[in-house]
Amino acid sequence: MYPNWLAQRVKMTPNRKALTFGQQSWTFQQLFDEVLEVAGSLKTFGVENGDRIAILSPSKPALIVTIHACWQLGCEVVLLNERLSDGELSYQIDDAQPTLLLVDGGYEERVAIHSPVTMNVLKEKTSVKFEIEDEWPLERTMSIMYTSGTTGNPKGVRQTVQNHTTNATASAFNMGVQSDDVWLCTMPVFHISGLSIFIRSVLYGMEVRLYSKFDLSQVVDDLVNGEVTRMSVVSVMLERILRELEDRDVSVSPRLLTMLVGGGPVPSNYLERAIARGIPILQTYGMTETSSQTATLAPEDAVRKLGSSGKPLYLSFIKIDQATNPFEEGEICIRGGHVTPGYIGRNASTASQVNGWLHTGDIGYFDDEGYLYVVDRRSDLIISGGENIYPAEVENAILQHPMIREAGVCGMSDEKWGQVPAAFIVGDEALSLESLQAFLQDKLAAYKMPKVLYHVKVMPRNASNKLLRRELRAWLTSESKA
Amino acid sequence: MYPNWLAQRVKMTPNRKALTFGQQSWTFQQLFDEVLEVAGSLKTFGVENGDRIAILSPSKPALIVTIHACWQLGCEVVLLNERLSDGELSYQIDDAQPTLLLVDGGYEERVAIHSPVTMNVLKEKTSVKFEIEDEWPLERTMSIMYTSGTTGNPKGVRQTVQNHTTNATASAFNMGVQSDDVWLCTMPVFHISGLSIFIRSVLYGMEVRLYSKFDLSQVVDDLVNGEVTRMSVVSVMLERILRELEDRDVSVSPRLLTMLVGGGPVPSNYLERAIARGIPILQTYGMTETSSQTATLAPEDAVRKLGSSGKPLYLSFIKIDQATNPFEEGEICIRGGHVTPGYIGRNASTASQVNGWLHTGDIGYFDDEGYLYVVDRRSDLIISGGENIYPAEVENAILQHPMIREAGVCGMSDEKWGQVPAAFIVGDEALSLESLQAFLQDKLAAYKMPKVLYHVKVMPRNASNKLLRRELRAWLTSESKA
Repeated sequence: MYPNWLAQRVKMTPNRKALTFGQQSWTFQQLFDEVLEVAGSLKTFGVENGDRIAILSPSKPALIVTIHACWQLGCEVVLLNERLSDGELSYQIDDAQPTLLLVDGGYEERVAIHSPVTMNVLKEKTSVKFEIEDEWPLERTMSIMYTSGTTGNPKGVRQTVQNHTTNATASAFNMGVQSDDVWLCTMPVFHISGLSIFIRSVLYGMEVRLYSKFDLSQVVDDLVNGEVTRMSVVSVMLERILRELEDRDVSVSPRLLTMLVGGGPVPSNYLERAIARGIPILQTYGMTETSSQTATLAPEDAVRKLGSSGKPLYLSFIKIDQATNPFEEGEICIRGGHVTPGYIGRNASTASQVNGWLHTGDIGYFDDEGYLYVVDRRSDLIISGGENIYPAEVENAILQHPMIREAGVCGMSDEKWGQVPAAFIVGDEALSLESLQAFLQDKLAAYKMPKVLYHVKVMPRNASNKLLRRELRAWLTSESKA
Repeated sequence: MYPNWLAQRVKMTPNRKALTFGQQSWTFQQLFDEVLEVAGSLKTFGVENGDRIAILSPSKPALIVTIHACWQLGCEVVLLNERLSDGELSYQIDDAQPTLLLVDGGYEERVAIHSPVTMNVLKEKTSVKFEIEDEWPLERTMSIMYTSGTTGNPKGVRQTVQNHTTNATASAFNMGVQSDDVWLCTMPVFHISGLSIFIRSVLYGMEVRLYSKFDLSQVVDDLVNGEVTRMSVVSVMLERILRELEDRDVSVSPRLLTMLVGGGPVPSNYLERAIARGIPILQTYGMTETSSQTATLAPEDAVRKLGSSGKPLYLSFIKIDQATNPFEEGEICIRGGHVTPGYIGRNASTASQVNGWLHTGDIGYFDDEGYLYVVDRRSDLIISGGENIYPAEVENAILQHPMIREAGVCGMSDEKWGQVPAAFIVGDEALSLESLQAFLQDKLAAYKMPKVLYHVKVMPRNASNKLLRRELRAWLTSESKA
């Protein structure tokens, strides 16, 4: 059992700031009051403990309130990615079968066939009293996030009380906690990198400064003026922050203690520029299945261990499958209280662990000092501006086009997004990139859309006919050199 | 399961400082190397996983190494209080039935009948290899400490992996963690206030600056020079530190973040003087059965909530038995992962909890803002210089004297120790305090010895013949007024 996150926090530090959004702020008590109000009106929809509620909303205070309200009722929350196409959203909603689908105003149309309820409506409803649970079972599923895999078939990953609290605890032991901490959140709340900030907030009693979007100028103001002590970013954001600091020729405030950078190693050029601007970079390796960070590279090791994802966190075990010596490469496997117990819906019976170990599909090695290096991402994962794109998923969508016989997708370097998808097809040569993109419009999120199209005669495959995406990547490289 | 504390820490931050004692320092790697050496030589005594090892030693690095060595072998450690009388030690050793009794050089005589092994011998022995466990079961008993209760019969309290880690985690959430933290330890390691510092050390990766004794001048140097960021004290120590700071007319370094004060509320006079000298006082309420702190009063509330023990920690629930409203007094009951599952030896079958709640025997109430006030300590507990003294235990010893028919003991205010025991007897009026003390010499620790003796005609008792110690306290007060 674990204490009810927000209820327990309110008992301890009711008057501490919990959330700031623009000019508005909420103490933990004020947040809790709103949460209970919304939870009470959710009750009028017949919501029961154990129900599943899906939410489609951009990052905003009402989303935070609604998530906590669902938790107060003992419900699981499916967090839907607003960047997905309508077709992708439908797939996930069908798979999750939520009791209730809540949407932010303006999104009703997109998921109309699933009879959504607008979040605003909840505030107007009469609130019904209900009993607040003091404690929650560790194995209770709190959040569900969809992520694709080898097959390109999105799976709803369960994140339990234990998963989230183990992660927040290991993070506290690693990067520390201060009573005046303020975490700047520009990461989407429907991603684990965003949601985990709000779990740390209630466990530590920490303020979150939330932005709906990545507002560069405002964010840099906050960093320079010492408004925040922690921030999570992906490389793309880091680069933009660096450029802005350089343009203004200023450094960040020494109050900034940690800039947590996810989504692959940080280029050495960024690192040097970050050091010059006083930014303490903590590179991290994690995923939806580990409820955020599982390894981090401390700032003092950033240059010495360039390209490494650092050491496993205190409550996390990492091993390289079948490797017995340092520098031996193999599949990265993870064990610990932060590892998901499994999936929901169509994949409910898919095992997430083998003998207690999560097999990530990522390839990596440990050096002789125990630092982890990720050399190849699972299933040729493409990371574009912090969003994960699984090539198989894009290929599956492309293959629905009648003029296409075979398809292969891989990541292509991109100045702005780090990577973007490139498509290779065997099919009618008359097909243009534009008409392929038009075809994919309602099937794929914009960020998953192929940005270039290559017609090829034969797809590179191995003896067992498996697509070799690394060959595609090699073609891209040789082409850009040519 | 939980990671093996020290082994996991060494993987993360092998080169961070773990321990400083005088001019000597150990990194976590160096500590671990010594620990494995000692563990290996313990193996030559036939020690097995699950065995129980008792240790009698003052606070010193060898004690820390030995405790960790026992843990690496999967053993329970009984920590014996060196201040106890030989008779009291014998009772505890008989009760615990350890596989092995380890003592610091010079203490062999005191427990000779129990065939002790000197800790020094371990360093000379050949070390035998053994398999290091990666993970420990949460329910494994790590330490056992004896504490008396209502009956005056000392009970060996079990503290498990879960108890210690829950406590360290809640403490981190409450008072924060910084990567450059250094905790000054002058509390005895055989008490939970001392041992818990070393558990935080391995979980957080934090240095401990250990002293064998409370060396006032050295401690104040450390506080003033910014050598440490945290310290645990009892009121008696705090007062001596304050006087020394006042004599030198200096304040502590702003690097000092927390002075954790246990053993009853801090007098307002101390508080004001602490504020004047820059000491952030965190008053705390806890006990052996809760593996240290269970409630703390934040520095910002210290004056406003004078006399309070503060709010329950994040992973702790506290209720007042049968109270339904603020300010209603009743028995303080505690629930959470930090609460002991029970006792060993003669008391192995004594339940420590009722429906998951530890009944402390302490009387208290919550105010309307949820702050806990302890108004009467369990079983008329006397706290003398940070040591707990149970009147019943002292009475039992006194009653063995042939000239005494009835005995009652209560706490008497003392300038130096906070409280000292006062004895009331019904018996031969010829008996002097000195001859009673001589009789008790080998039965009671020096700090438990009655400092005054009153002959009375009748003991104050209630209708069911239960001794009313509060009447004895009232007699003392009226006498001192007279």
